[in-house]
Amino acid sequence: MNAPLESRQIPIAVEKKSSFPLDQWYVAAMARELTDKPVARTLLNHPVVLFRTGDGRAAALEDRCCHRSLPLSCGSVEGGGLRCGYHGMLYSPNGSCIEIPGQEKIPAKARVKSYAVREKDQIIWIWMPKQEGTAPTSEPPDYPHHDDPKYKYGFGVYHYDAPYQLIHDNLLDLSHLGYVHLKTIGGNARLHMTAKTVVSSDERSVKVVRLMPGSTPPPTYRAAYPFGDACDRWQEIEFHISHLAIWTGAVEPGKDAIDDPNRGGFHMRGFHGITPETESSAHYFWSMASNRHPDMPETIDTVVEQTKFTFDEDRLVIEAQYRNMQRFNGQSDWTDIHVDAGPNRARRIVAKLVENS
Amino acid sequence: MNAPLESRQIPIAVEKKSSFPLDQWYVAAMARELTDKPVARTLLNHPVVLFRTGDGRAAALEDRCCHRSLPLSCGSVEGGGLRCGYHGMLYSPNGSCIEIPGQEKIPAKARVKSYAVREKDQIIWIWMPKQEGTAPTSEPPDYPHHDDPKYKYGFGVYHYDAPYQLIHDNLLDLSHLGYVHLKTIGGNARLHMTAKTVVSSDERSVKVVRLMPGSTPPPTYRAAYPFGDACDRWQEIEFHISHLAIWTGAVEPGKDAIDDPNRGGFHMRGFHGITPETESSAHYFWSMASNRHPDMPETIDTVVEQTKFTFDEDRLVIEAQYRNMQRFNGQSDWTDIHVDAGPNRARRIVAKLVENS
Amino acid sequence: MNAPLESRQIPIAVEKKSSFPLDQWYVAAMARELTDKPVARTLLNHPVVLFRTGDGRAAALEDRCCHRSLPLSCGSVEGGGLRCGYHGMLYSPNGSCIEIPGQEKIPAKARVKSYAVREKDQIIWIWMPKQEGTAPTSEPPDYPHHDDPKYKYGFGVYHYDAPYQLIHDNLLDLSHLGYVHLKTIGGNARLHMTAKTVVSSDERSVKVVRLMPGSTPPPTYRAAYPFGDACDRWQEIEFHISHLAIWTGAVEPGKDAIDDPNRGGFHMRGFHGITPETESSAHYFWSMASNRHPDMPETIDTVVEQTKFTFDEDRLVIEAQYRNMQRFNGQSDWTDIHVDAGPNRARRIVAKLVENS
Repeated sequence: MNAPLESRQIPIAVEKKSSFPLDQWYVAAMARELTDKPVARTLLNHPVVLFRTGDGRAAALEDRCCHRSLPLSCGSVEGGGLRCGYHGMLYSPNGSCIEIPGQEKIPAKARVKSYAVREKDQIIWIWMPKQEGTAPTSEPPDYPHHDDPKYKYGFGVYHYDAPYQLIHDNLLDLSHLGYVHLKTIGGNARLHMTAKTVVSSDERSVKVVRLMPGSTPPPTYRAAYPFGDACDRWQEIEFHISHLAIWTGAVEPGKDAIDDPNRGGFHMRGFHGITPETESSAHYFWSMASNRHPDMPETIDTVVEQTKFTFDEDRLVIEAQYRNMQRFNGQSDWTDIHVDAGPNRARRIVAKLVENS
Repeated sequence: MNAPLESRQIPIAVEKKSSFPLDQWYVAAMARELTDKPVARTLLNHPVVLFRTGDGRAAALEDRCCHRSLPLSCGSVEGGGLRCGYHGMLYSPNGSCIEIPGQEKIPAKARVKSYAVREKDQIIWIWMPKQEGTAPTSEPPDYPHHDDPKYKYGFGVYHYDAPYQLIHDNLLDLSHLGYVHLKTIGGNARLHMTAKTVVSSDERSVKVVRLMPGSTPPPTYRAAYPFGDACDRWQEIEFHISHLAIWTGAVEPGKDAIDDPNRGGFHMRGFHGITPETESSAHYFWSMASNRHPDMPETIDTVVEQTKFTFDEDRLVIEAQYRNMQRFNGQSDWTDIHVDAGPNRARRIVAKLVENS
Repeated sequence: MNAPLESRQIPIAVEKKSSFPLDQWYVAAMARELTDKPVARTLLNHPVVLFRTGDGRAAALEDRCCHRSLPLSCGSVEGGGLRCGYHGMLYSPNGSCIEIPGQEKIPAKARVKSYAVREKDQIIWIWMPKQEGTAPTSEPPDYPHHDDPKYKYGFGVYHYDAPYQLIHDNLLDLSHLGYVHLKTIGGNARLHMTAKTVVSSDERSVKVVRLMPGSTPPPTYRAAYPFGDACDRWQEIEFHISHLAIWTGAVEPGKDAIDDPNRGGFHMRGFHGITPETESSAHYFWSMASNRHPDMPETIDTVVEQTKFTFDEDRLVIEAQYRNMQRFNGQSDWTDIHVDAGPNRARRIVAKLVENS
């Protein structure tokens, strides 16, 4: 029954060459987001509904009833499935319709796409395949720190009106701290810009290590740890296709070695899941964990609050940057400077994966 | 005096094959909406200004002064005409300019389009012709219930960010009541889905009759009539090109026959004028009348209030449905189920009329 | 480093034939707007950042850091330059980058466009060249009244969602006062429409003079000057490419000659800088100065307040007009009336200059 009117509408979710690396795990949600209500989220241009079945298993379906197109996220979780809120069709986690109220026979075409999901390390991962319906060829990345008793974490889920790679750029180049985040984790601008930076990479990851001995402890560090006038700061940034893991912190000068993996001092463990929503927008799932100084055990709330403030500052900058790129000629004439080594390597990795997707 | 700047702007109201049935009466307004101020409303892509002249006659003009394009709806009603709010040009209900302040001669081209309107049954109807300037070939449809002393009505005018036919679909298939409107007129979901439904139609109308004996009285019914544990419900839906008339209600079991046109019990008479605004938006003019039980004479306010709540729920669903259709492939792959017989007949009628428009 | 993603974005500021007169001075800002923070403003499709250096000189640069495209207006003024708020690059008023923190060598391409600006008569003028980088061939227009001790002025900066020439039209044809501005400077509608109007012009300007003896003093006039029942009003409108200078006022009948340049009475001196933002939007910089009657010395605040109210009314009308032009066929079928002589001459002057730009 195709009336001329709607069939003329332009489809948004067209099949075409992807702008994103496929056959990859991406973050779909933080585990604590998914309770008893379905969650609607567009991931890599796919409108997806996430939900938990009655036994707690996470599931992901195309967010559209095959009958009259209502988002399934407007419906309700019922036992082992998800029921549409318009005429009550019930779908199982594998996408097949298992009940049409008032009708005995269920047509074979009454089904929707389903997506492979995994719940791991308090993160809901989703597999975005090159070819629809193919099974994952790997397991999701590890991120053990959410369950590490040394740390306690808080998290946030941000929507960005900017392409995902601008967030990669931002996180891979922490030299911006001295200009953007003076109120929280900034510190000495000059020290950030001149810190010795070691960049290494392989086919799927980039690592940037910066050591800044003799730093002035920035406000967030002071709020969380009893530093004196100076501290030795480190930043270890690991870029992976779907996320970054950033380990920063500081030790008291002379007490611990700044580059000893077992160093004491103040530690912040940041998880940064970055999932494209569309070519021009992204989801940003962050968590921030910190250790507890024995005399200052309740500082994690302060750290998370200031982290949130810091990430708000980043969002302002990156969205302003993207709006400006749209007004001007994209990024075709960017002038690179010394801090761009890490970001540029990550862009080369992504570009190669996109080419093969 | 056509400067290059504005002449380059893309016209929205282009002349092209219509997406709507033409040579038809549509609802332009509820009579009570039209007081001493002009009302701007786009109908079938035509920007129209509605107003009443000094003697109370309704009139409709193209909503644009021929001098410098200000909407005439920004002006004011003055005696027998409508005066532009920029330089004071005065238009008669037939579209001709009858005064240019400060200028004696009125050029022949100083005029705007006019539309044939009728006020009938407390509804303002407008004729949308295939060919501009041709007179109506019929009179507007009858809807006697607004003036029937057995009933009292309330009304609402809604704007829909969705194509008009999605509202037809919704109203022709009341099986959705059990899922969408549980808080008001819903009742037993299963009973709605399995009720015997008789669908009949001719070239300009569809009738859907559903009988549901042994229903649980839903909240709105209980609020308006002293039902016991059960009632025998009926739904009679009549689709016409411009509107639907829906007669629903319930009788006490054993007291009246559910299919007797003169049955007693609780009655709701719904008028649903549905006028396309554009291909992707619509105006929805509804009224709801109910009879009065001798012991519960003031229930109509409750019925109208709950009707409004119910129609708000419908709007949420239909607009979500349409947004999702835009994200996906329109309606090209909808899977029909048993409840779609009535809606699909109406779509066939409209499609045929559009083809001839 | 051009990833496929962003390079696909459509540039807005494309190089193409201009829709505006070029090699002209335009108003970029009122002098008092420019303090210690940079101001972002798009002028003739050019995104510009305006700022004052430490020594108070006004400067204008392209509003985009050449490194990663952040608007320079998100940065901060520092000594003789403007520092980007992302990674700290510092730019001089001539557009060259003079510092990259942490990097010794500054690449030659590390620079942005700069614009010639002049501060004169309490107005910041900017030169918009046909060919990038060419120097002004003239000095900005004179407007001596901001510094005239006889007058005191207030000002406003409005953004218009309408093309700049619709504002020219509005100001060159003050016959709309009787319909749009009854509450402030309106007065007798008929008198406005029938006033004798003298229009003269040359290649770069239009002058419209209207005399209205025997007018009823409108509310703003009464608030500012002790008129009796009648006054003799005059309006002298001068259109220039970048702005209009409007000298209006009234004398007491029999006391001064209405057309004597040295007449007494109540005077309003309006400056109206109109700078296109894009083809469909504009900046409107207005100031209103009035003289002081010895018995009513503090009336300028009232006059400015009511002027603001009047200009708000104009904006409502002009933006409604433009929205309607977009719905209909632009201005291709406008019907001219007697009041359009002045506006049409200005449009011919602009059209000719645009053709040569």
